[in-house]
Amino acid sequence: MQNKRKLAKTISKIENEHSDYETILKNAWKKNIGSAYRIGITGPPGAGKSTLVNQLALQLSEQNLKIAIVSVDPSSPFSGGAILGDRIRMRELALKPNIFIRSLATRGSLGGLSIKTQDICDVIDSFGYDIILIETVGIGQIELDIVDASDITVVVLVPESGDDIQSMKSGLMEIGDIFVINKADRDGANSLAINVSSMLQLKQQFKKIKNYNIPVIKTIATKNENIDLLLEQVLKYKTILKNNNNWYLARKKRVENKINELIFSRVIDNFWTNERKILLQDNLNKNNISKNTPHRIFEKLLNIK
Amino acid sequence: MQNKRKLAKTISKIENEHSDYETILKNAWKKNIGSAYRIGITGPPGAGKSTLVNQLALQLSEQNLKIAIVSVDPSSPFSGGAILGDRIRMRELALKPNIFIRSLATRGSLGGLSIKTQDICDVIDSFGYDIILIETVGIGQIELDIVDASDITVVVLVPESGDDIQSMKSGLMEIGDIFVINKADRDGANSLAINVSSMLQLKQQFKKIKNYNIPVIKTIATKNENIDLLLEQVLKYKTILKNNNNWYLARKKRVENKINELIFSRVIDNFWTNERKILLQDNLNKNNISKNTPHRIFEKLLNIK
Repeated sequence: MQNKRKLAKTISKIENEHSDYETILKNAWKKNIGSAYRIGITGPPGAGKSTLVNQLALQLSEQNLKIAIVSVDPSSPFSGGAILGDRIRMRELALKPNIFIRSLATRGSLGGLSIKTQDICDVIDSFGYDIILIETVGIGQIELDIVDASDITVVVLVPESGDDIQSMKSGLMEIGDIFVINKADRDGANSLAINVSSMLQLKQQFKKIKNYNIPVIKTIATKNENIDLLLEQVLKYKTILKNNNNWYLARKKRVENKINELIFSRVIDNFWTNERKILLQDNLNKNNISKNTPHRIFEKLLNIK
Repeated sequence: MQNKRKLAKTISKIENEHSDYETILKNAWKKNIGSAYRIGITGPPGAGKSTLVNQLALQLSEQNLKIAIVSVDPSSPFSGGAILGDRIRMRELALKPNIFIRSLATRGSLGGLSIKTQDICDVIDSFGYDIILIETVGIGQIELDIVDASDITVVVLVPESGDDIQSMKSGLMEIGDIFVINKADRDGANSLAINVSSMLQLKQQFKKIKNYNIPVIKTIATKNENIDLLLEQVLKYKTILKNNNNWYLARKKRVENKINELIFSRVIDNFWTNERKILLQDNLNKNNISKNTPHRIFEKLLNIK
């Protein structure tokens, strides 16, 4: 519990962009992180992602593993959204000593959210967690950034989303390593499963991993139905990743992301000398702005130090 | 029509990041853009945003104004989503000589989408459009970036969104300059309107503009009910913006955004010399990556040219 409290405090510093931000990350990385399996769960609002995450975490926690749940979905019960019953279940989960739950505010730009999510997962990783479940809301393709932070992406759909999903489908179809049709006792579950499978057949050339057939699994998360089957596939995928170099590639990508973030901050900081700041404000004042264009001001900025 | 076709082609170049990207923007800005009134319409999926935008565009087009609709909502009929009836109405709209419609793919990072949306609006502005209606899906606070591109943000809610809206509310409450309760003939419209109004009362200290009372308007977009009322408020707000310096501040913000984008591209491009690229790849290879941290590689990159 002590450990969980410390982790929570550290994450808060990351979220609030505390002055220790980079020191925390620097120290986390020194611990040779990278062993945690990062599982992204995404899908439209109301697909039952939180309940699914809940069940997965419960089953995993019985295997003597340390599990973290990170939610970046504002409508998730993990974030205080959704209905009371869900929230109570989440609270029970949070009491287990080997389960850590954290919701992230989506305040601010998503670009920033992407690297922050990764940084937070890195911190969790450095605290010795084995599995990180990352729940994100999937609307169109805007979840792509956060998918970068995961080793596997589970796309959760529901029969009744119908038309909505139709329009989101192309985005979600591209990122799913496993598909779940949740609430599978409702009308249309079978036909959606068939639809998804045949779309996946068509998209075979985009496969990240050769000879891997993306499974489509029908679940009823509220009744804990087929969650074991899903879990089996999720864990099997980890072995596949390791056998196919993709485990390394995902880590490489994250190191690159972090380096780019460090470069960005440093180089942009260096650019904004006092002289340049003054020049910018002078060119942006009410009298001058209409005589200027961003491109002209940019050229002026480049011409001084 | 000729003009519209040329505009469409130019926007495609922006979307596809054509090599002429910055030249196009540079030329657009030279035309002293900034007179177009940029109206953001956001809200949860299924709130009827597209129908509302449709009606607003129709009424505005009768005032002898040039109207553009930019949709960054993948489930919008403007983007080919939603039901057939909607799409047919959109097509009728597109046939009017003074209405231009364009949907943007949300592919790629949202950070990039934000500046792209602004750039596209700048191009539209340079083609002499008076009004730009920007439709975005509002989930949590992820629409914030795109709000930056607008002079006014209209938040569209519906009675039945209930719990969902509850959890999104804080984000949407902060960005709305006008609130619309659409589908107001359904149960719960009045209580939602009262709820929203009282939340707005509580948040009065966050007001962007003193003495401006944020209106909450009940509409039925499909029946064209109260759209005139909404339009009146939207146009009134433009006068308020101009009287309160906020019209200038929004433009200043956009010039700054664009300058920052230009700096970012240039400075990052300059950073990545061939030597640094080689050093990075060398440090990221399978043998070296585990001995490294992003921070250590970053320091190495800084130490060479």
